[in-house]
Amino acid sequence: MKIRVGIVGGAGYTGGELTRILLNHPECDIHFVLSKSNAGKFLHEVHSDLNGETNLKFSEPSVNTQEKNFVGVDVIFLCVGHGEARKFMENNELPEEVKVIDLSQDFRIAERSFIHQRKFIYGLPELNKAAIATASNIANPGCFATALQLGLLPLANAGVLGEIYSTGITGSTGAGQGFSQTSHFSWRSNNIQAYKSLKHQHLHEVYQSLRQLQPTIENSDFEEGILNFVPWRGDFTRGIFITSQLKCDLSMDELQKLFHDFYLNNPFTYVSQNEISLKQVLNTNKCVIQLEKVGHKLVIHSAIDNLLKGASGQAVQNMNLMFGIDETTGLKLKASYF
Amino acid sequence: MKIRVGIVGGAGYTGGELTRILLNHPECDIHFVLSKSNAGKFLHEVHSDLNGETNLKFSEPSVNTQEKNFVGVDVIFLCVGHGEARKFMENNELPEEVKVIDLSQDFRIAERSFIHQRKFIYGLPELNKAAIATASNIANPGCFATALQLGLLPLANAGVLGEIYSTGITGSTGAGQGFSQTSHFSWRSNNIQAYKSLKHQHLHEVYQSLRQLQPTIENSDFEEGILNFVPWRGDFTRGIFITSQLKCDLSMDELQKLFHDFYLNNPFTYVSQNEISLKQVLNTNKCVIQLEKVGHKLVIHSAIDNLLKGASGQAVQNMNLMFGIDETTGLKLKASYF
Amino acid sequence: MKIRVGIVGGAGYTGGELTRILLNHPECDIHFVLSKSNAGKFLHEVHSDLNGETNLKFSEPSVNTQEKNFVGVDVIFLCVGHGEARKFMENNELPEEVKVIDLSQDFRIAERSFIHQRKFIYGLPELNKAAIATASNIANPGCFATALQLGLLPLANAGVLGEIYSTGITGSTGAGQGFSQTSHFSWRSNNIQAYKSLKHQHLHEVYQSLRQLQPTIENSDFEEGILNFVPWRGDFTRGIFITSQLKCDLSMDELQKLFHDFYLNNPFTYVSQNEISLKQVLNTNKCVIQLEKVGHKLVIHSAIDNLLKGASGQAVQNMNLMFGIDETTGLKLKASYF
Amino acid sequence: MKIRVGIVGGAGYTGGELTRILLNHPECDIHFVLSKSNAGKFLHEVHSDLNGETNLKFSEPSVNTQEKNFVGVDVIFLCVGHGEARKFMENNELPEEVKVIDLSQDFRIAERSFIHQRKFIYGLPELNKAAIATASNIANPGCFATALQLGLLPLANAGVLGEIYSTGITGSTGAGQGFSQTSHFSWRSNNIQAYKSLKHQHLHEVYQSLRQLQPTIENSDFEEGILNFVPWRGDFTRGIFITSQLKCDLSMDELQKLFHDFYLNNPFTYVSQNEISLKQVLNTNKCVIQLEKVGHKLVIHSAIDNLLKGASGQAVQNMNLMFGIDETTGLKLKASYF
Repeated sequence: MKIRVGIVGGAGYTGGELTRILLNHPECDIHFVLSKSNAGKFLHEVHSDLNGETNLKFSEPSVNTQEKNFVGVDVIFLCVGHGEARKFMENNELPEEVKVIDLSQDFRIAERSFIHQRKFIYGLPELNKAAIATASNIANPGCFATALQLGLLPLANAGVLGEIYSTGITGSTGAGQGFSQTSHFSWRSNNIQAYKSLKHQHLHEVYQSLRQLQPTIENSDFEEGILNFVPWRGDFTRGIFITSQLKCDLSMDELQKLFHDFYLNNPFTYVSQNEISLKQVLNTNKCVIQLEKVGHKLVIHSAIDNLLKGASGQAVQNMNLMFGIDETTGLKLKASYF
Repeated sequence: MKIRVGIVGGAGYTGGELTRILLNHPECDIHFVLSKSNAGKFLHEVHSDLNGETNLKFSEPSVNTQEKNFVGVDVIFLCVGHGEARKFMENNELPEEVKVIDLSQDFRIAERSFIHQRKFIYGLPELNKAAIATASNIANPGCFATALQLGLLPLANAGVLGEIYSTGITGSTGAGQGFSQTSHFSWRSNNIQAYKSLKHQHLHEVYQSLRQLQPTIENSDFEEGILNFVPWRGDFTRGIFITSQLKCDLSMDELQKLFHDFYLNNPFTYVSQNEISLKQVLNTNKCVIQLEKVGHKLVIHSAIDNLLKGASGQAVQNMNLMFGIDETTGLKLKASYF
Repeated sequence: MKIRVGIVGGAGYTGGELTRILLNHPECDIHFVLSKSNAGKFLHEVHSDLNGETNLKFSEPSVNTQEKNFVGVDVIFLCVGHGEARKFMENNELPEEVKVIDLSQDFRIAERSFIHQRKFIYGLPELNKAAIATASNIANPGCFATALQLGLLPLANAGVLGEIYSTGITGSTGAGQGFSQTSHFSWRSNNIQAYKSLKHQHLHEVYQSLRQLQPTIENSDFEEGILNFVPWRGDFTRGIFITSQLKCDLSMDELQKLFHDFYLNNPFTYVSQNEISLKQVLNTNKCVIQLEKVGHKLVIHSAIDNLLKGASGQAVQNMNLMFGIDETTGLKLKASYF
Repeated sequence: MKIRVGIVGGAGYTGGELTRILLNHPECDIHFVLSKSNAGKFLHEVHSDLNGETNLKFSEPSVNTQEKNFVGVDVIFLCVGHGEARKFMENNELPEEVKVIDLSQDFRIAERSFIHQRKFIYGLPELNKAAIATASNIANPGCFATALQLGLLPLANAGVLGEIYSTGITGSTGAGQGFSQTSHFSWRSNNIQAYKSLKHQHLHEVYQSLRQLQPTIENSDFEEGILNFVPWRGDFTRGIFITSQLKCDLSMDELQKLFHDFYLNNPFTYVSQNEISLKQVLNTNKCVIQLEKVGHKLVIHSAIDNLLKGASGQAVQNMNLMFGIDETTGLKLKASYF
């Protein structure tokens, strides 16, 4: 029997990408897609590329509908804004057997990962695969957090992480559909801008993951912590590319082995022996990593599609693990390499 | 048993896209990918997004290899340059039972569609589906030709086509991987340029298709024919968008019915009731069409992904039809809508 | 003594470009820049590239300020929305000697070109240079209208214009700073869409200009007129490129002579003997035109920067003519060719 | 009397930008533009935006022409490739009174800054203004070097520079007109890639400048030096944006004062009190800088147009200084802000 899926917040970018993936997922049926502002409309009126793919309509999140919907599904994806996921969980009594995968940041930090009887597991398969497989609730990682961690986890696992200086660049979809000066085409086209220098909210979950592997990392605040990360707004719609610089005494051979071993059995994440570029991973669920060594200096590049490995793709990967099916099911996506 | 596939000319854009599709096609196995200039290299050394997807290497097109290869496959895709496909067919004696799908323009025009004992069928499923199903050799349509025809065929079928004025815009992948001023990023970024005004080579095959349905169309040369088409180089990598203008006395209702009926049972081509835009079809095998009527003036917009419905996707669609499997197999691709 | 300038509506794209030009114009002083929503702010708080260029602030359009301002200036540029220019003229009694250059469409059509004692002249220098030189009030042409007309006027002047089929593409700045789905970077990047097919509001002023030269053009409505124009939203910020197709019996030599003679003494508009491309004119006040002939078919390409020759640059050109200084003063702008 | 200028290597990006600037420079006359590969052609056949701007032709660099040309000019700009400038100086005996401004890297490092009787001064006005004013030969700084230094010089001047971690992104024009995979539109569009991590050749001149102000900086090699710089290929044509991170105990007020004082009397370089973005400086000769402080961590953003402040604009700024005219002459360029 197929996994019965409900999507809450289906009109945004992550809800749309999730729908695109699940419509072609061989082990899933989408039972409902909720959207307050679009209830009653066809999905393809909002996601116009879905024209011809599905006749599903957005549901109205009325109390009655909810009860009916929430009972009939196996898993609910929350694709709502930060803060909205916690509210949804507070306001809705979900049947115990319904699993939840939340794409917001509301339950990612362990101290805030509980609600009612539910405990959320941080859903980075490369870090927590066993726990995900038995979890009922997943806090899906942030996009920058995913790309940043995947470049650093093997070093934390070896206990060799010191100060890290990173710069990342993200496509416009990372900021959602909202309107602002920086989302306007006339502003963003051919432009670059830094924002939230050293204070990006995803750093909290990255610190948490690094300390899980290297508990000696003491501070984890913006002012004193070892993570120095500056994100940039990029002149493209999809993808995240991060360069991290740090001191490291391991040889290139040792580093390659560390990374190779750490990502063994992780089908989406691997270290390339060649120069990587962002477009290698666009429209896929992959993370590619490149290592460079100059003297004692180590440079790590990592790249993901922010909407897939950084959001909806990883959410489906988590669902696959939770339901005991192959991790890559429905995620063998044709790259949009050009 | 799976369809055994050979690809000749696998290093270019269309060869790459074909490989991406076929690696995930449930009814196919790729037996070899030939590339003169890359023989011996891994596919992912050329198509770097395939890293982690396949360990296939490009084969050397030596006589011995060829004999061996060509015998063991069910179908060969020719992804070589215009003129090269005919040479390949002249120089290689393929076993009779091996089918051929040629993506070049070499065999598209009926007068030039024969070689040895082989007759090539023009592979536009919306026009020639029955013939394709029984064909052994397919001449896959051109990208502009596909988008232009699909906007006009229902009118030709109704015998109402008069003079047509069209403008089309294409992404840079339409021009291949070769280097030239117009392929340079510094030139093409933020730029627009017309080229081959009224003389685009694809007009020949469009005339052929239109006359197949509306034999009263007399002239089909650049100077006197009814097709007035100006292509533009666009500031993007993928996709074709065409606007055609013509006089037409049919009402909007009649037009909608004409198009709807013509494309019934064609899963990839449909008329949208809303405004279309290019990104609705990117990274998919679809063609979307939009009709607008002002007085006696008719405007038709059509959009495709030039590398998929305009090349490799349509080639796989043809293969599916030739081997009697569902037309959409392996072609339910996640749109890269953002 | 320098020309004293006031700008009404200085916070938008056209107001910003006008300010950029006038700050370096050797014969001008900017006396005030009004902006309701930004009164009191520095100009560079809105147009951040002006940081270091000027310490001017936006003025408050209070009655007192207005009286004082409007008296002290020689010319006022209206860079406000369509409809707002007429309201401004109705609500403000400008001193008779203050000239007005309106960038909106409110006074472009002769029937609607009067207000109080003021009569607005259509400010296309290539068409009305003598009248502009003695005018007190100018209705500055629309951007699409400028590019479309300049490709057609010499033919109208020769009385040979028949049916015209045009497609144009415009950058995002043509739609102003407002927020909408089509102004969002995630939507517009790599996208193309048609809009207002055959019904673009600029067609009215183009008909007016064409009939000024070729009075035999009868109809000028969307349904029956000879102008068939479909605009596209383009994937870039600046510029307009138009391709027009029509039947024409003149030889290429005759056409070249027609165009050359018509644009003699017009320093910004000329016919190129080579292929043109959009970026040749970006960040300049130029219009370049290219002619192609195939049999009796004529293809005309024309390109402008929508914010300069299509708006603020042409407005300054008109000012120069009105004040008897060289047409090109302050308009020898370095092209942003890459 | 105007400055008589000769340009050697006028067909590339920097030669083109230089020509664009000098054609509108009120104190200059261009006497010749040499280009081996284009001798005899009109400038506008290569730089097509110059159509209508000039009837100059590229000269042939024959011995006779050279002698004649080189005698009649006051200054020669060398816009040739790295290595070619030194060859040119070796092979040509320039009259002593002819000044030279070299845009290559051949004479930037003090140890290699001599040839014949000529000594080249490193032409960063913010660092060496007095020396430039009396120099006969200028080595114009590199583009990345300019943006990187201008963000760091005030700190070196205060003697407080420690380890610096920088990431920079550059437009495609930074790599010249040559063809390569990474210059192809289909590759570069929507892509990001790191290159020359920690080993960019411009680091040598940056170290030299920093040590000029802070001689305690010991090492200056890639492996041990304090500069850790990773450049990225960006998805745009023009501009450089750099983020540098370092530890710093100075307060924000102290930093602002340091930078303000250091750049006093430098009209093109200033610290913005607001968030900067790349497009603020495009098509201008400016450098804008932004400072951010979090605890003891300092983040510095700097942005320039790589072809202007990073190449041809700075070259003209140096010329102005050498000839005793206002530094900004001919360089008040309209920003291409959108």
